Parts: sequence; structure tokens; C-alpha cells
Amino acid sequence: MAGNSIGQLFKVTTFGESHGPAIGGIVDGCPPGMALTADDLQLDLDRRKPGTSRYTTQRREEDSVKILSGVFDGQTTGASIGLLIENTDQRSQDYANIATQFRPGHADYTYWHKFGIRDYRGGGRSSARETAVRVAAGAIAKKYLAEHCGIEIRGYLQQLGPIKAEQLDWSQVEQNAFFFPDATKLEALDDYMRQLKKDGDSVGARVNVVATGMPVGLGEPVFDRLDADIAHAMMSINAVKAVEIGDGFAVVEQRGSTGRDELTPQGFTANHAGGTLGGISSGQDILVSMALKPTSSISIPGKTINTAGEVVDVVTKGRHDPCVGIRAVPVAEAMLAIVLLDHLLRHRAQNAGVQVGTPDIAALARQQ
Amino acid sequence: MAGNSIGQLFKVTTFGESHGPAIGGIVDGCPPGMALTADDLQLDLDRRKPGTSRYTTQRREEDSVKILSGVFDGQTTGASIGLLIENTDQRSQDYANIATQFRPGHADYTYWHKFGIRDYRGGGRSSARETAVRVAAGAIAKKYLAEHCGIEIRGYLQQLGPIKAEQLDWSQVEQNAFFFPDATKLEALDDYMRQLKKDGDSVGARVNVVATGMPVGLGEPVFDRLDADIAHAMMSINAVKAVEIGDGFAVVEQRGSTGRDELTPQGFTANHAGGTLGGISSGQDILVSMALKPTSSISIPGKTINTAGEVVDVVTKGRHDPCVGIRAVPVAEAMLAIVLLDHLLRHRAQNAGVQVGTPDIAALARQQ
Amino acid sequence: MAGNSIGQLFKVTTFGESHGPAIGGIVDGCPPGMALTADDLQLDLDRRKPGTSRYTTQRREEDSVKILSGVFDGQTTGASIGLLIENTDQRSQDYANIATQFRPGHADYTYWHKFGIRDYRGGGRSSARETAVRVAAGAIAKKYLAEHCGIEIRGYLQQLGPIKAEQLDWSQVEQNAFFFPDATKLEALDDYMRQLKKDGDSVGARVNVVATGMPVGLGEPVFDRLDADIAHAMMSINAVKAVEIGDGFAVVEQRGSTGRDELTPQGFTANHAGGTLGGISSGQDILVSMALKPTSSISIPGKTINTAGEVVDVVTKGRHDPCVGIRAVPVAEAMLAIVLLDHLLRHRAQNAGVQVGTPDIAALARQQ
Amino acid sequence: MAGNSIGQLFKVTTFGESHGPAIGGIVDGCPPGMALTADDLQLDLDRRKPGTSRYTTQRREEDSVKILSGVFDGQTTGASIGLLIENTDQRSQDYANIATQFRPGHADYTYWHKFGIRDYRGGGRSSARETAVRVAAGAIAKKYLAEHCGIEIRGYLQQLGPIKAEQLDWSQVEQNAFFFPDATKLEALDDYMRQLKKDGDSVGARVNVVATGMPVGLGEPVFDRLDADIAHAMMSINAVKAVEIGDGFAVVEQRGSTGRDELTPQGFTANHAGGTLGGISSGQDILVSMALKPTSSISIPGKTINTAGEVVDVVTKGRHDPCVGIRAVPVAEAMLAIVLLDHLLRHRAQNAGVQVGTPDIAALARQQ
Repeated sequence: MAGNSIGQLFKVTTFGESHGPAIGGIVDGCPPGMALTADDLQLDLDRRKPGTSRYTTQRREEDSVKILSGVFDGQTTGASIGLLIENTDQRSQDYANIATQFRPGHADYTYWHKFGIRDYRGGGRSSARETAVRVAAGAIAKKYLAEHCGIEIRGYLQQLGPIKAEQLDWSQVEQNAFFFPDATKLEALDDYMRQLKKDGDSVGARVNVVATGMPVGLGEPVFDRLDADIAHAMMSINAVKAVEIGDGFAVVEQRGSTGRDELTPQGFTANHAGGTLGGISSGQDILVSMALKPTSSISIPGKTINTAGEVVDVVTKGRHDPCVGIRAVPVAEAMLAIVLLDHLLRHRAQNAGVQVGTPDIAALARQQ
Repeated sequence: MAGNSIGQLFKVTTFGESHGPAIGGIVDGCPPGMALTADDLQLDLDRRKPGTSRYTTQRREEDSVKILSGVFDGQTTGASIGLLIENTDQRSQDYANIATQFRPGHADYTYWHKFGIRDYRGGGRSSARETAVRVAAGAIAKKYLAEHCGIEIRGYLQQLGPIKAEQLDWSQVEQNAFFFPDATKLEALDDYMRQLKKDGDSVGARVNVVATGMPVGLGEPVFDRLDADIAHAMMSINAVKAVEIGDGFAVVEQRGSTGRDELTPQGFTANHAGGTLGGISSGQDILVSMALKPTSSISIPGKTINTAGEVVDVVTKGRHDPCVGIRAVPVAEAMLAIVLLDHLLRHRAQNAGVQVGTPDIAALARQQ
Repeated sequence: MAGNSIGQLFKVTTFGESHGPAIGGIVDGCPPGMALTADDLQLDLDRRKPGTSRYTTQRREEDSVKILSGVFDGQTTGASIGLLIENTDQRSQDYANIATQFRPGHADYTYWHKFGIRDYRGGGRSSARETAVRVAAGAIAKKYLAEHCGIEIRGYLQQLGPIKAEQLDWSQVEQNAFFFPDATKLEALDDYMRQLKKDGDSVGARVNVVATGMPVGLGEPVFDRLDADIAHAMMSINAVKAVEIGDGFAVVEQRGSTGRDELTPQGFTANHAGGTLGGISSGQDILVSMALKPTSSISIPGKTINTAGEVVDVVTKGRHDPCVGIRAVPVAEAMLAIVLLDHLLRHRAQNAGVQVGTPDIAALARQQ
Repeated sequence: MAGNSIGQLFKVTTFGESHGPAIGGIVDGCPPGMALTADDLQLDLDRRKPGTSRYTTQRREEDSVKILSGVFDGQTTGASIGLLIENTDQRSQDYANIATQFRPGHADYTYWHKFGIRDYRGGGRSSARETAVRVAAGAIAKKYLAEHCGIEIRGYLQQLGPIKAEQLDWSQVEQNAFFFPDATKLEALDDYMRQLKKDGDSVGARVNVVATGMPVGLGEPVFDRLDADIAHAMMSINAVKAVEIGDGFAVVEQRGSTGRDELTPQGFTANHAGGTLGGISSGQDILVSMALKPTSSISIPGKTINTAGEVVDVVTKGRHDPCVGIRAVPVAEAMLAIVLLDHLLRHRAQNAGVQVGTPDIAALARQQ
């Protein structure tokens, strides 16, 4: 059933297969009056683009996005925004041999069972290529949040296989092909990836995303909590298997006396909660972390069955990322932006007239 | 904005504050023709009920649920089902002193900021009491899944503070007040909880939920994936800060060659994925794990501010669980049931006519 | 499937059968900070109540509504509002004889076919009793619109069978049991109804609803137009078979040169459009008209079949309105209020920052 | 806010302005396994196309639709279907003079007020050009309904200005440029339209749509009734001001003893209800009628104001239909198809297991 939309007031709907003529989407609910050009979206698309380093897939997709509607004289009009990205580098023949095989770890088996038919070329709809449209749509949300609300969203790779960032130096993140915030580990990363490629194997990753400049009040009791919607959005990204807000799984062994973030007139004393209380933003930074599994498209042969139920060996020959987690950074940023703008609009709808007294420690909290 | 509903075809909407006259909800979309009585719901409500052990809150709420509609001659009719649970043991005076204080770690501050008004009695809408309605609604979903689809949902406490279950003995889970599957640790748990209570402190927990007897095909590309909707549902439970599907964060250090679940004519060789591939159920067990933070309602004084911005000490005097994770077990089961039934109906809508060929390894997979 | 909700930001979900223990609903998304008591709802419920005149059904239902949540210290809190109306006067035995018969013109046949089971007591979920909850929920919307937005919603009976109002005297509407705005026709109405009752027959009606004090801008292109959502809401009322906005069917023979409402600095010169242009409110009054069919519950025997397919005569013995259109007036007002508040919140979400230049002829238009 | 989607399980989302590079949409939820090519859609697009007769607008738009996704090897895959129609004949200069004027009867004034910005070229998003995407999406629904469910949807022009069809000869409808079912009136229609054009004026119309081969059971109590959703869909079409189901406004003067459709073992004796009872399809034909206002784009000068609030004369110089009702016929068919398929999927979701006894008079009813 219809599952290709996300958001309620800022709603993104997407279409497109890896090897069809184009992928695209519709952004519905963007506030009017915001300056917008295709270049605003291209920036993030280029960050996600395959082939930007020798460690991501070598397909040469232009990922050139067109805005087909909803913008007039350089400004959003409030009408739905049509987005189109043509597929320019499809080598469908790479996939011919897996037409009847279910690649282990992929969606081949479940799509085939669910729909009774499967576009096997590059994974069809289940391909990570679909996330390009998320990035384009998310760029619109990011721009509105940044320019109209003072909210900044940034992500980075916290861990790749065994290699963890031990410092968070934001100035490094956009300086390397890994979105990695710890310059002291870049060489180790390089070595690790080279070996991984030689092995024909892949590895998992941990990606973190942070939103700063948050207002208090985003999120709706009780099911549409901000953190619940963030978890949904992140878990909808290909290969994501786990999501944490704030301290995440560390809370299991935590005591209440240490885990609660105390309040002072100068702001919160800590941010164990990761920016939400009762599912509503507290004005502190939103802290999200997620795990991405290693891609199952590797050149080490694997056992599987085919549509006739026979045992076969499968080797994925296409061009694939040894670590899909790297390119997931801009995707995760995009998803967070979509959720935050959606909730910002929802909050605005119901609480336009709300005026609360002192203290507004939100502003203070932001300065921490 | 309207955030008190979950599900699209099997939709649950709830209302009610901890200290109002009643809490309740509406279950919309339950298939007709299922036998249903209030007793079917009461069973799970009693499992969640406070006061069932000396380690959960000592409030004596009857949690007696009434079915007000949607059932005729003992069968569901397809009409919306009204649920009502009266609040019988409210001691609002316990909370009078915190009317103007923001308890750290609670939703007091964010509700006040968001809405400009706050029902401070027992946390109002943000109270965990609200989860009783989830359990009642989830019991309807569980019953349908069990009786009409062969899907069983069970949960347990995997870890409480530092104490981890090292064996999963399902026969133990309902035999102790902790939903704990490892009988060898019960004494240690008892000692730990006694000390925790003496300290006036609280602790976090890890809860696991499992669905067995799964069909292949539940979940919708690309945003409404089964695992994404599970993550949303779990993260919407009070105090949950992290969710994993299958191997979860362990995938970060995993290699593709080990992490992919291979297929054989006899079924999958492993279940690293936790029962979903590409967001669609694979027929394997659904494996979900989540972290719940320690309750912030403890008797150790904490620093906070009041609505005038002044520094105050807050001590929560009400009756509270030292570990909210324990009672979260039936809540997590309920949420998983709601998500699975919703997706089962969604799948059925679009794919009624789908007939796929061999192999149906789903049945095989179930036997593992 | 889940169809018991209406609205997106101001969302109303209802439950309850005519002869169950209670009917009720949940109002989700009401802005916080509005003064609200059960008395505010009771007023409209009493206007709809059966037994208020000798021409409406003689059941003695108290229709006494309780607010179970969402209000604290006399003010809405932004939490979902639980509403409960107990059924006090059920004579289920009246309906025993029709348990296996499909009353012509009723939903008996379609419910039985759709769900395979039917609560035949008083029509169950298809009973007009369900509209009491709409009226209660709508009263909340009406109050917000009136007190916070200056929008007033009023309805009247424009025609009952052959008797048409020829003047619209608002001061009359609440002075008679018919909501009829033309005092010169009251005696004729009285005579007509007496005869109808004697005949054991029923008749149709036309109900009009008007919203004044409208702002410009409510309604969303292209599917969620204000007029489209109004048509949906009105057609969802039992027995409604037609809806018009503005001139309605009169436009068929109209020319463009006369039908277009010209604009002047003093406002529009006419309101053929009924208050919307392109599906968006123009600031003029919203004019809605609808037709309600005669109730099929009459004492004149009718032919039908039973569940065994046999021909039977059916006589409806319960207490029924000879003209359901009369009591539909407050229901239609409620539905218009729900739609308008929903759209007002939607407009506010996206366009909070919109500031347009002169002329604001909306204010002028209102003064016409 | 996001208002460019319709449907829940079969969901259509659209974008595009009259004078942008393209219009398009996404069809989400189409069942897999249906044969589909662009030609299937083109057929209906050509029926709607401007310039097919000398009485519809003379723009030469190719309206050539491309399917960008969701179809593989000639069959739908269950993935979302991207649709694209490029705009090839835009003469934006025609509209330059109305950039600052509010054309009476158009959405200029309300869009400007709502969004603070307006794409004035050809009405932008409010242009009837948008309905081309509805027709393309509706053609998918029509095909599924026809081939998989035996439901046929057909429309015709019942009245144009003063000229009414007095016979319904389906074989005529596709034989003339008016979709008119009464060959005896064609000459009169011709004359009338010629004079209208000479006058530079426009006129309203009544369009009827019929669905045959209906199953019993489509529609959901209580708000998502089939007739309510039909009313919504029809009223969302540009220029529609009124909608009737079955007898429509004629019920106002009807008596219950005549208006109720009696049941016999051979089927219903009449279809006053227009195919729904209690908002659920009865198996009888769905009968819908609607009124379309005359287009306000005429060459007779009209009074209006400009954005500076000054009085101006406006003459619409673009190429426009003297009767938009004619081209609305395929649009109305498309909307009915979308609603019916959506409800068919919804019904299937919840009632897959429903088995009811005799009599199945649905089949009989169809034969009438």
C-alpha cells in the first residue's frame, strides 16, 4: 500500500527505480516565500553522489536535479514542488544474472514474495539510489530551517568498522571523503578501506546527526513524539538497523540520579536526553546516532536459492560501496531536516497564540 | 497538533491524564468477526498493572477496562471500538508542590513551553499511565494476530541496570515479577532492586520483543518500512531512548560476508537482520530490542528551576517505579502487535491477488 | 478500515452504537488555552436532542456529555479531549423483529454484506445517534472559531418537503422547533408535519449553513480545497444526498459574465461563489446547502428480503423523526466548524510568516 | 499545507503549474501485476485534451504522458508510479497584463492573499491544466477496476447551459465533441456554442458519472463513506460547485414511502439512493451528478482591483473554453475511479475473511 510518503505538513513523496529513466519526488507543504533554486539542492546531492572518492561506488551518475514546479521568480509559492533526477548511467546488464536469484541480505526475496514481481535491475525500488531524492527534498527543509528558524543540521561518520572517531572536529568533516571528524584517524581509515576492497568485503558504520539552534516545543504527544518520528525517519534509510537519541543504550546501566538533566537559570547542566523530554524538543541540541549494516553486495560468493528453490552461488558484480554508511551522512541529515520542519509546522499550527512567561531558558540552553 | 493516533488501517487513538476521571481510546479498523470480551484485554492490563510486585509503583489502580462499542454478541463488528479505564486512585495532592517546578528529566518544562499550560498532576498526559490504553488496544491486535494469522508476540526484560539475562528461558518470563528469562539471576535482581529502593534511586533497562510465525511481505517501501514503523512505535513509549532491529548496533563492526543471512531451501541460515529485508518481513522472527532510561521521579533531591526562573530543589514524592522498564514489557508487546496488524492489513489491501511460486521458505524459516 | 476520523490538525474520532452503553469520541488538536466546560457542548447537544418537539423522535435521551480529559483548571491543555455520552434510553426489544430483515433505505443490507455481522439494534453504528458526538466535538470548534477568530457558524432549515422559507430572519431560527427562518410558514409546517405523522410517512429537507467573519486563505490546493472538504463533511452526515456551495446547481444555466463575483475596493459585488475561489476562502461568507432524504423508518409497510433471501414485509416500529432534516441543522453546523478550524490550523502552519500588502478587502467583504 | 494528495491506499499526489516546464504526479499503492503502458493513460488524456473541438481551448498541448517508474516488463510492480507530462505550448506573455490584477471568479485573489506570492501565468497551480494528471492517474485506477473487478466508469454531459440531454444513449457519448448522450440536441448545442463564442461569454454545465458492476461493501463508516469521499473528489475539480448522489436535491420533496429502494430476491426495485446505503456501496450503480460554473476567463471586460487596490478593467485574452464542463467529463471519471479503487483496497484490507450467506443480490442488482 501507499508507503512512499513521509511527513504530514511538510510531506515528501518519492518514486523511481535504480535503472528506470528517472527518479524523483514531490515536496508538498513547503512554506511560500523562500528563495530556492536547483543549486540549493545540488550541493547536498553532490555530497551524497557516488564516485566522489575511490571508496564509494564508481558509478558516474550526474544526479542533476531539476525543479519542475512550486517555484516562481526564484521563490517558493506554496505549491507542491516537483523534483526530477534522470538516471544517466545504467548498466542493467550487470544484473541480468541475478534476475532469478535472491541475493542474501537484500530485499530481493521479500519484494518477490510481497509483490509477485520484482524489478531486479540494481535492486529496483529497494536500491539506495532512491535516497538521492530524500537528499534533494531534505535540502529544501534544511534551507528553510537554517534561514527562517536558525536551526542547523550536520552529520558525520562516528565509526567505520572498528575505527572510531575520538574527537569531534566539525571543521574536518567536509574536508575528507569519509565525513570523518577526527583527522588523526584518516590514515587508518584509508588503510582499512583499501584492505576491505582487496578482500571484496564490506563493513558497517555509525552515523551521528546533530541539530543545533532548536526551539522548545517541537513534537506532539503521545505517538507523534519528535524522537519517535526521528527514529522512524532514520530507520527508513536503507541498511539502518538501530537508532539512538541522546545517551541511547547507555541509559540501560544508568541511574536516575545521574541521567536526569538538571535545569538552572543558565540552561540545562547536561544533555543525556539528546534534546527531547516527553517527546518534545527542549531547546537543547538534538543528538541522533544510528547503525548501518555492511552492504550485502560484495564480491565474496554467498549461498542462496533461486526462484526455482535451487541452491546457487551468488556474486554481486555491480559497482558498490564497501561502506554504505559513508554516503548515508547527507541522507541522515536530510531525514532529520524533513522531520524537524514537519514538526515545526505542526507546532506552529496549534500553538500560534501561545505565550509563555519567563524563563526562556531555551536561548540559554543554545549557548552551551 | 493531532498526535494521539497510531496506525493507518488498524488505528489507535488515545486520551486521558493520569489524574483525570478516566483514560481511554478508540480502536478503529479491527476486522469484523473476531470473538472479543473485556477479559481478553484485562489479561495484559493486569500484567502491566502497578502494584503487582513490591518493585513497581504501589498505586492501586484497578485498570479495569470497559468495551463501549464495536462488539455485538461477543464478536467485533468492524465498527470502532471504544475503550474506557476509569482512574480510581488519584492522590493529586502528592503533586501540588511541583505545580510550579520543572522536574528534571520530565516533560514538565517542554509541555509548559509548548502549550503555555500544564496539567501537573502526575505528569498529566505525559504520565506512563497513558500506556495502559496502549496495552488494552494492543491486546486486541495480539488476539487477532494469534488467532487469525498464527503470529505470537512475546517480550522480556533482557537487562536491568548491570544485570543481564544470559539465557532466554521463555517458561520463566511469566513466573517472576520482572519478566526476566534467566532464573539464575532472580536473586541478584531482588537484591539490586532492594538496594535501589533504599537509595531512593532508579535505573534503566533493556526490553526485547519477539514476533514468531511471521508471514513474508509485511512492510511498505520506502518510508513505511516495517522496521521503521516498529522503531517509531517503540520510541513513542515513555522513557525509550534507543531501538534495535536484529543485530542492531553490532552491525557497525560487522563485515558483509558474515552479516548477510544466507538462504537455503531449508530456510535462512541466520537472522542477523531481525526479520526484515528492505523493510519487509522475511518470514523470520522479528527481533526488537530497546533501552528505557531510569525514571527521573526519585527521592534524591535534584536541582531545577521554577516557572519564575528561580533555583529550587525538587523531590518527587509520588509512588514511582524504580525501574519503569519492567512494566514496559507488555507495553512493547502491545506496540509491536499494533504495528504488525496494521501492516498485515495494509499488505492484504494491495496484494490480495498475489500468488507467487516456489519456494515458500517462509514456512521453513518459521521452523528454525 | 479505519474511517471514524475526520480532520487532520483538528481531528475528531468517534465510536458508539445506538444501543450500546455509550457513544463518544476524541478531539485531537484543539489549541491550548481555550476556556471550556461541558456546558459549552451541552448547549448544542440540547438543540439536536430528540424529543425537543413533538415532531422529532420521542426517545428521552439525556445526551449528557462528559469531558474526560484535555481540560485542566477550565482550560484546554492541548492534549486530546475525551468525550462520553451514555446511552440511557435504549429499548432494544423494539428492534428484535428486524434482526434478520434488511430495512429498505437503511444500511442494514450493506453493513451485513460488508462486515458479515450486524448490530441491528437501532441501526447500530449507522444510527443517526452517532451525530450527537459530532455536535459535541463541533461545539469545541465553534467556540474556538467564535472566540479566537471571529467566525460565526449558523444553520437553518431552508425547506421541508414542499414548504420553502421565503425569508431569512435569523432571529426566528432558534424560536421554533424547526430551525425555520420564515415565521409566516410556521403554521403550514405544523399542519404538514401533523399530516405526515398521521400518514406514518416521512419527508426530505434542505438545510443551509453559513459562516460569517471568514478570513481569506483557508483551503489548500488542489485536492484539500475548502469546498471539497466541506462537501465531504456534509455528505458524511446521515441521509445527506447532495451538497451545494454558493449558487450550486444554478451555475449550470449561468453565464460567466453574470456568475463571476467582481471585486471593488469596497469588497466583492456578489457572492455567487459561496465564499471560495480556487478552493480557498475569499473572506466572503461561506454558503453551504444540502439535501437530506426522508428517513426510511416509517410505519407504512415496505417490501424487503431477509437474510435467507425470502420476501418479507417490514414495518419500523421504533420512535423516529418524520423529518431527520430538522435535527440535522446543529449537526451541519458542527461539521462546518470542524472543517473550518482544521483548515484554519493548516493555513496557520504553513503561512505563519505571510504578510501581504493592500488591499485587505476581506474586512470590507465581511461588512457587506 | 500539504494538500496535493488524494486517497489513502491508492494515493495520487500531483504537482505542476500551467506554464512551468512540466506537470506530473505520483500514483502510490497501485496493486502489482497489472499490465500497464503509457498508451493506457494516453487514451483518456486525449479525450480531455484541449483543442479536440473548436469549442474547447485552442492551445496545442501534446499532453504526452511518460511513465517513469513502477512498471517493469510491462507490469506494475507495486512501487510508486511516477508520471510526467511536459508543457509544450506556453504563451506566458498572454498573461503578463494580469500579473497585478485579480481576475474576478478566479483564484488570483485568494492565492495572493494566502501565499503572499502568486504564479500568475495561466493561473499557475490553480489552472485546470492540473487536471491532466488526474486523468492520467485515474486511467490507472479505471484499468484496474475494469480488468480486475468488473467495474466500468463512464461519464457524459447531461446539460450545457439551457440545453439538457433528454435521452441517455451511451453509444452517442464518444461520437461527439460534447460527450453528449442525446443526438437530437447536437445541432442546438452547436448553435448555442457558436453564439456563446461570438458573445465572448461562457456557460455552466452538468456532468454525470456512472459506475456499473459495483460490488457491495465499499465505503467506511462513519466519516469515510463512499459518497462522502466521492463528493470530496468531485468538488475538488476546478469549477465544480455542487454534487449529487442518486436523486440528490430531489429528495427534499420526496416522501419516505417513495424514496426508499425496496429489496426483492431479484434485486432492488429502484435506485433513488444512487448506489450507496449508509455510505457503503449496495451493488447498484453509483450515480453522481455535478455542476460546473462557467469559466470566468471571458473576453467581456469585468471590473476588478489590482494589487494596489485600484479599480481596473480586466479582459482575459488567453485561449479558454467557453464551457469547461465539457472537458470535465474525463476528469470526473478519473476522480470516481480513484475513489472507488481506494475504497476497494480499503475494504479488502479489513474484510479479507468475510464470508456472508445468501442472498447475494448484488449480482442480481447489477443485471437490472
